[in-house]
Amino acid sequence: MTDMIGVDDALEHIERLRHGEVLTTERAAQVLALHRAGGLADYQLSAWLATIAARGLRFTETVALTRAYLGPDRREPAVRGGGRPVVDKHSTGGIGDKTTLVVVPLVAALGIRVCKLSGRGLGIAGGTIDKLESVPGLRLEFTEAELAARLATDDAVIGSFSGELVPGDTATYGLRSVSGCVRSAPLIAASIVSKKVAVGADAVVFDVRYGAGSLVPDRGAAHRLAGLLVRLGAEFGLRCRAVLSDGSVPLGRAVGNAAEVDEAVDFLRGRGDRGLAAECEALAVQMVRVAEPEEPEARIRERLRSAVGSGAALSVFVRMLTAQGGDTAPVLRGDGYCRPEVRTLVRARRAGWVTDVSALDIGRAALKLGAGKVFAGDVIDPHAGIRLARPLGERVAEGDVLAEVFHRAGTDGGAAVELVAGAVRVGPRSECRVPRAPEAVSGADVFGDVPDGTGAVHV
Amino acid sequence: MTDMIGVDDALEHIERLRHGEVLTTERAAQVLALHRAGGLADYQLSAWLATIAARGLRFTETVALTRAYLGPDRREPAVRGGGRPVVDKHSTGGIGDKTTLVVVPLVAALGIRVCKLSGRGLGIAGGTIDKLESVPGLRLEFTEAELAARLATDDAVIGSFSGELVPGDTATYGLRSVSGCVRSAPLIAASIVSKKVAVGADAVVFDVRYGAGSLVPDRGAAHRLAGLLVRLGAEFGLRCRAVLSDGSVPLGRAVGNAAEVDEAVDFLRGRGDRGLAAECEALAVQMVRVAEPEEPEARIRERLRSAVGSGAALSVFVRMLTAQGGDTAPVLRGDGYCRPEVRTLVRARRAGWVTDVSALDIGRAALKLGAGKVFAGDVIDPHAGIRLARPLGERVAEGDVLAEVFHRAGTDGGAAVELVAGAVRVGPRSECRVPRAPEAVSGADVFGDVPDGTGAVHV
Repeated sequence: MTDMIGVDDALEHIERLRHGEVLTTERAAQVLALHRAGGLADYQLSAWLATIAARGLRFTETVALTRAYLGPDRREPAVRGGGRPVVDKHSTGGIGDKTTLVVVPLVAALGIRVCKLSGRGLGIAGGTIDKLESVPGLRLEFTEAELAARLATDDAVIGSFSGELVPGDTATYGLRSVSGCVRSAPLIAASIVSKKVAVGADAVVFDVRYGAGSLVPDRGAAHRLAGLLVRLGAEFGLRCRAVLSDGSVPLGRAVGNAAEVDEAVDFLRGRGDRGLAAECEALAVQMVRVAEPEEPEARIRERLRSAVGSGAALSVFVRMLTAQGGDTAPVLRGDGYCRPEVRTLVRARRAGWVTDVSALDIGRAALKLGAGKVFAGDVIDPHAGIRLARPLGERVAEGDVLAEVFHRAGTDGGAAVELVAGAVRVGPRSECRVPRAPEAVSGADVFGDVPDGTGAVHV
Repeated sequence: MTDMIGVDDALEHIERLRHGEVLTTERAAQVLALHRAGGLADYQLSAWLATIAARGLRFTETVALTRAYLGPDRREPAVRGGGRPVVDKHSTGGIGDKTTLVVVPLVAALGIRVCKLSGRGLGIAGGTIDKLESVPGLRLEFTEAELAARLATDDAVIGSFSGELVPGDTATYGLRSVSGCVRSAPLIAASIVSKKVAVGADAVVFDVRYGAGSLVPDRGAAHRLAGLLVRLGAEFGLRCRAVLSDGSVPLGRAVGNAAEVDEAVDFLRGRGDRGLAAECEALAVQMVRVAEPEEPEARIRERLRSAVGSGAALSVFVRMLTAQGGDTAPVLRGDGYCRPEVRTLVRARRAGWVTDVSALDIGRAALKLGAGKVFAGDVIDPHAGIRLARPLGERVAEGDVLAEVFHRAGTDGGAAVELVAGAVRVGPRSECRVPRAPEAVSGADVFGDVPDGTGAVHV
């Protein structure tokens, strides 16, 4: 048990932390326990988190925070692979990132167990749980036993945990997103890795997205964060790999909860956007590699393509939805889950090529439409969002539809429409931006970038 | 007017601030305006403050924050000296610091106008307003016109401002104290100096206390903070001086609200504790010096002693209380304001000398008794507190009373009694600690310590 401290000790600790006091597992656990017991208010916990974010944590402190999240009594992992490794993936989030909805059934279709516990939206990037909540009837909260049973039956599960998987992370996760503490490498890493450890994953692939609109500003920072994640995972016995990807353009065409589920389904039908396909394949390849290290990469790619082509991946997805009580009719009928009340078309004001699409502005527009949360108590509109009609590099005539903006009848979509109109840039072909292709990195690739325990890591 | 920003812009600003974005007056004013308008929650403002505290501010950013506190429309000062300079003093706070209650009437007794707007408690050190609230009937909130009128009539006023003297400081002041953001030099300096500018002081003496139990850990940090305060004041046209004092032992004998008012009255009767006397004289001398730069220091000291000896200073204090509607009977009768329900004596467990008194532990004990606030909504018990029976260096026999602990009948005083028993150390004479005497520093003394605008200042 963690000894209970008083609020004055907690406040003194915040002051000292700022002045260099080393964060220990014990102290972090005490702060979290005090908040949990109601002895520390949200404005105090957010000050603690902001102090950690601004001051940064050394690697050893990040390990300590992760242990504190996990709690003093190390529990049995939630799931077991039954002799096979359980693979997990985690994206740091990005605008239009629906890769979880694609790669979980895809990799499971190859006979690998994939257990994906997801979270809710953090900042402008929506969470997978928020997206799946747009499927009517879908149960997303599981007990430990249910999770293990689902994995044993279907090899794939996406959901959230009904119990306290990682007690320390519960309180901090929501507060970070609404307190300007999202882009902190130690807070990101401790939150992600603690959940992977608790759920019982054997191997994890981290998708670290960078560029405006992502958590991580540039490729260098992404490499450092990937290094921290892989090293922190290894500290807790996980086999880890990472993929670095350019998140400055939205991933795929749809941004918004129901719209993204629909796009994932389209992809599993073999009708995916090119950028989304490259990203999903890169992730899926790494997920198979950590599970089957002997399999040649070319063979993995072949198996993945055949799982889409044969409909096996879509079958796993539909089976997963069915098993979780979700309405699969919109998938089977092919008309999708997204049913907005108002659709506004954004048209090209000039002819040319789509030279750039700002993920950041598309994300902000989605937030204004109600597709994500600003305040802790905000309610998400699952049907709000944006669908891009033209991908980067495509030619457009004046008046062509560049995007559709969806929202509720009562919501003022004007500001979002303006943002989208500015986000999709049309210009000469020579100015078309070419996003960097996803890059796979292993532990050996990234370890060199991780501070040796004496420096603070910032995203 | 400040342009209103959205909460997403504010959160993005917090993230960027952490990564080095320069804090401007405009941006700080936008954050404060958003919070004021209800668009930013306390847990978000506390994260902003914690980020500023942890990252530190450059001198130019501290100036910007001070301007933001003052607001876009620079108003007329609240008070005017009518041809004479208006002098103010400010202590960074310390355990048992009741110097304001002493030096305001004392300096005013010399014919100098002293306008002291005070605040409430911040952390373990109580605020002057909290202390004066133990005087029944005393009005402490004034409008601008009332404040000016009081100063014109009596040359002395202590109180708080009923209106919005410094709009930006109002929200942040309370939140800092309950979010572990108390010991941040830029937040301290912006808060103090903005109020001095708004009230219309011409000259200010800053009392910077250091050592365990104070805001400032050591003399070096005190010197840096004094330098920041004097330089920031000068930036806004104030004549400033500072006094550095050792706050690791409580100032005087009483800690707690009513008990400290009683001790201030005793001092004005000429019955002051030696440490308190040295501190009050050092401050009063500097206050007279900034008002009357030609007056020799020896002559100032003589006039101050005579103002106590003649009863003139006590008369000013009583006149001030009367004018503010306070019950002066406890002063006139001589039995004081402190009427606790329970008094517990702390006795020496061995014979020896009082080798040390820990201000920090005495402060913690006072907090446990209800003499200060931990949570924003806490209610202070004016009669709770501690009175030290034996000063540092005095000989005691086993069983002698070292201190009295006061509290309400319903409050458990056990933990506080233990803290006080541990705080007053008894040992061999050779181990008696000698606190450093107060040191006066002028602008020229401290300017060299202020970073040149490229470094962050931490307390």
